[in-house]
Amino acid sequence: MTETIIPTHHPAVEQAGREQDLIDRVVASFDGCADPRLRQLMQSLTRHLHAFIRDVRLTEAEWSTAIEFLTAAGHITDDKRQEFILLSDVLGASMQTIAVNNEVYKNATEATVFGPFFVDDAPEIPRGGDIAGGAAGTPCWVEGTVTDTDGNPVPNARIEVWEADEDGFYDVQYGDDRVAGRAWLAADSDGAYAFWGLTPTPYPIPHDGPVGKMLESVGRSPVRAAHLHFMITAPGYRTLVTHIFVEGDPQLELGDSVFGVKDSLIKRLEDQAAGTPTPDRRDLAGQAWARTRFDIVLAPDHT
Amino acid sequence: MTETIIPTHHPAVEQAGREQDLIDRVVASFDGCADPRLRQLMQSLTRHLHAFIRDVRLTEAEWSTAIEFLTAAGHITDDKRQEFILLSDVLGASMQTIAVNNEVYKNATEATVFGPFFVDDAPEIPRGGDIAGGAAGTPCWVEGTVTDTDGNPVPNARIEVWEADEDGFYDVQYGDDRVAGRAWLAADSDGAYAFWGLTPTPYPIPHDGPVGKMLESVGRSPVRAAHLHFMITAPGYRTLVTHIFVEGDPQLELGDSVFGVKDSLIKRLEDQAAGTPTPDRRDLAGQAWARTRFDIVLAPDHT
Repeated sequence: MTETIIPTHHPAVEQAGREQDLIDRVVASFDGCADPRLRQLMQSLTRHLHAFIRDVRLTEAEWSTAIEFLTAAGHITDDKRQEFILLSDVLGASMQTIAVNNEVYKNATEATVFGPFFVDDAPEIPRGGDIAGGAAGTPCWVEGTVTDTDGNPVPNARIEVWEADEDGFYDVQYGDDRVAGRAWLAADSDGAYAFWGLTPTPYPIPHDGPVGKMLESVGRSPVRAAHLHFMITAPGYRTLVTHIFVEGDPQLELGDSVFGVKDSLIKRLEDQAAGTPTPDRRDLAGQAWARTRFDIVLAPDHT
Repeated sequence: MTETIIPTHHPAVEQAGREQDLIDRVVASFDGCADPRLRQLMQSLTRHLHAFIRDVRLTEAEWSTAIEFLTAAGHITDDKRQEFILLSDVLGASMQTIAVNNEVYKNATEATVFGPFFVDDAPEIPRGGDIAGGAAGTPCWVEGTVTDTDGNPVPNARIEVWEADEDGFYDVQYGDDRVAGRAWLAADSDGAYAFWGLTPTPYPIPHDGPVGKMLESVGRSPVRAAHLHFMITAPGYRTLVTHIFVEGDPQLELGDSVFGVKDSLIKRLEDQAAGTPTPDRRDLAGQAWARTRFDIVLAPDHT
């Protein structure tokens, strides 16, 4: 390797000095911020934003495109559509935020993205109840336990579950008042739980806006790997927001559009032929069904 | 110093591995992008965005605040108000983009921010003409030359100038059809130019939206240092977008809210008592006036 010696007064040195001086001035502009955490956030944001602009030598036309993109994202966003969350999702920023807020703790179950389709007042079902509420799909028996990281049962944990129907839509996307494909149940005093859900299917995130256009420009698919959402809460434990994914789903190879997949969350769904007796003697009227197991391990609170 | 030895299977190693693995997967999702420049931009953006989230250990509440901020910025933005440009400006991102696109070239005049108030069809004025068009303020005679970096005159350069009135408003902010405080003129065949402008005064950027609220939260002022905008174009030369600032303006010490100030662009305005003869024998009807000189040096095109 040959070494390039750049004299002190070379234009490249002067240029780098001007760029760094600008960063120093912007960082210093936040020195007076009374909230130390806000100061840290804004100063770090400044450094990373400027490092990006310098690294790629952002052109003025590209800067304008970015301004137009953000403007379009703002204009399509309303109380039902959140394009900035979609943007965060497809850049993996949502998933990284979850990663840094759910640090590894022994064998605790991994977290993944929350998604935009959770609803706060889902109906309660008993142990072994059905979350479908009329949503179309193949019934799937889901059972497991909720334990701590030493294997002790966590009694009475609250388990919220929600998912899309076989057409790939959540109830709230239909624009009527249906409540379907969502419920909550309590694990029993031994930490055991079971419910009837639907076999999950892959579906695209909303892709008729600027984020969809960006994905198309870069040759990426908007499709999410098939999944079933869980949120588990129990006093003294870290709230766990996660999914299970379906072993063999081709989208696992193609890539989940929001990077939510963790190997530990991929579960085998065992297909059961029509007529196979169900665990709770439910009569499925000749429908095929599936079953799976998801044992949930909670980390203590404040980990 | 003591050294902390972290075993390979330590949770901190596993945690860092999960965070890095996520970045790798997001970066790889852009590998199929057919446009190499777009691929580079998205992959670099991904790396810097994730580095920020990891560095500050962004909380989920902070992430939500960021989503709400961007949403509010989108909703206040329309064809007259551009909150994302304001955001870029107050983070110094606009200025950094200008810096990387106007690299140091010998003694060429430095560039600065374009701002949102340029209008494409300003009236032409002759050499020595007045840009005020009725705008209130102290008349200021501005003169200088346009040369290349060897001091040779650049003949007939097109010089666009625009500025706020003494109340801190540009004509387009009044919501009527006035055209004031803006014009263009041609330098003569020796590169000389002169015009009557107004002594610039400091004014705040629009601060009744989310960007203004952010500035208030961090204890920053929305005020810009007093300035007069220039854009100089001439065939064969790099278009120069710049300002002149006013020596002694207290805002130069307090800080320009968009980081546009360069020492080389601060000019002395010489105050002239009422009755002092003007360079072009213009009768100012007993008004005081000022004068300044701004010699412009253009870099060759494609530098």
